[in-house]
Amino acid sequence: MSPEQAKDILMKKDGFSQWMDLDIEKVDHGYSKLHYTIRPEMLNGFGTVHGGVLFSASDSALAFACNSHGILSVAMEVSISYTRPAFEGQRLTVEAQEINLGKTTALYDIKTYNEEGKLICVFKGTVYRTGKPVE
Amino acid sequence: MSPEQAKDILMKKDGFSQWMDLDIEKVDHGYSKLHYTIRPEMLNGFGTVHGGVLFSASDSALAFACNSHGILSVAMEVSISYTRPAFEGQRLTVEAQEINLGKTTALYDIKTYNEEGKLICVFKGTVYRTGKPVE
Amino acid sequence: MSPEQAKDILMKKDGFSQWMDLDIEKVDHGYSKLHYTIRPEMLNGFGTVHGGVLFSASDSALAFACNSHGILSVAMEVSISYTRPAFEGQRLTVEAQEINLGKTTALYDIKTYNEEGKLICVFKGTVYRTGKPVE
Amino acid sequence: MSPEQAKDILMKKDGFSQWMDLDIEKVDHGYSKLHYTIRPEMLNGFGTVHGGVLFSASDSALAFACNSHGILSVAMEVSISYTRPAFEGQRLTVEAQEINLGKTTALYDIKTYNEEGKLICVFKGTVYRTGKPVE
Repeated sequence: MSPEQAKDILMKKDGFSQWMDLDIEKVDHGYSKLHYTIRPEMLNGFGTVHGGVLFSASDSALAFACNSHGILSVAMEVSISYTRPAFEGQRLTVEAQEINLGKTTALYDIKTYNEEGKLICVFKGTVYRTGKPVE
Repeated sequence: MSPEQAKDILMKKDGFSQWMDLDIEKVDHGYSKLHYTIRPEMLNGFGTVHGGVLFSASDSALAFACNSHGILSVAMEVSISYTRPAFEGQRLTVEAQEINLGKTTALYDIKTYNEEGKLICVFKGTVYRTGKPVE
Repeated sequence: MSPEQAKDILMKKDGFSQWMDLDIEKVDHGYSKLHYTIRPEMLNGFGTVHGGVLFSASDSALAFACNSHGILSVAMEVSISYTRPAFEGQRLTVEAQEINLGKTTALYDIKTYNEEGKLICVFKGTVYRTGKPVE
Repeated sequence: MSPEQAKDILMKKDGFSQWMDLDIEKVDHGYSKLHYTIRPEMLNGFGTVHGGVLFSASDSALAFACNSHGILSVAMEVSISYTRPAFEGQRLTVEAQEINLGKTTALYDIKTYNEEGKLICVFKGTVYRTGKPVE
């Protein structure tokens, strides 16, 4: 199974990524890159993008990257650091990279940037590799 | 300003919490408790609730708890550990508790449970206290 | 194997815990409590206890708690939040509690307090359960 | 104040880094690189390096990098992911890089490698910038 095929399987059933209208530019082994635009319903009480939205897009990028090997993998432990606010109408870019690929777990670094290339948040994700195929 | 008033100000402008249809049972100084139901568009590619949804509800509970003192506070660094999957139709409970309240930062523990009281995820959030009033 | 026996096996080979002179008050299934005193060589460049010392004592408490079931378990992902400095001569108390016990992973909350019961740091640890016995 | 001078001030008072016998190869603005050798008293109950030692060396590298601007900065929230065990006698390399430098906080990525360049652990640290000079 190719990274592209694994992504298609995930995306087809992923109602939340569809709601976010994620535009997936690229998937490869241990890698993914995507874009999305901040809509009004993605804002928090301060008029900036909700932390949960930044998290969710990063989490989806993680899912595409970690399942790219064709082995069903699920996030187990994640941390996110916010470095700069993002606002309605901005188009963000999310890039996921594999830091370590173990037998039962793997580690990913996911960064989100705004249109000027400024860092919005850093997401570190540890996944559990179930050993079952993505399907 | 009461914790209840601070919550109302945040909620009014929080498009994402409204989309999640969060039902806030209680807010107090350094505390909040809320409920929500998992809808189809909240699922991921595995048919379980998207990690970003669990994160977002926890993040909103954090916002209500940490802004309850009337001082505008924003999440800076967060980690989440998933312990058990959750499914469409389940009604989850989220409870946020203050672990430490410093002058410029504060620390919160937020747990999500399903209807049987089983732990779904644990969220630890560090916030920055801006010193400005919530308004 | 009892929690006490598992602890003894770990302690015997644990040069670093011996260097820290950890005084283990209690171990039980998914639980441990210990004490130690801050010595001059445990300080950082600011004259407060080195973050690595606070971490290490928490990590040892985690090891005793997570290996108490007799299944060899190792830390995989940990986060620590510092809430208050600690100083030379203080005697600290560290308490580890199991939050979730899964088949292949488990989650622990470890808190460190000073003599006045004030919180010094919060440590959250995810361990991998190897399936092999502690020996 | 130069990064080198800030490091010297920290090192002089840092009993724990001295105990670890850290060999600092380079410090620069937002950067540091150091080496150390795993001694018997740095092992845990499994005969591998204690997680607290890996953490401590990373934490010291963080301290040199984040104080390099001459502004006293302290770790507030840290997470560490272990990817591979390390053993007695190995000489490890730790490299700290600044990911984001804000007004009151900053974010660092610290990686530890063994002699073959294999990743041992990844450390992400958020520091609080006190605004006071290092001295």
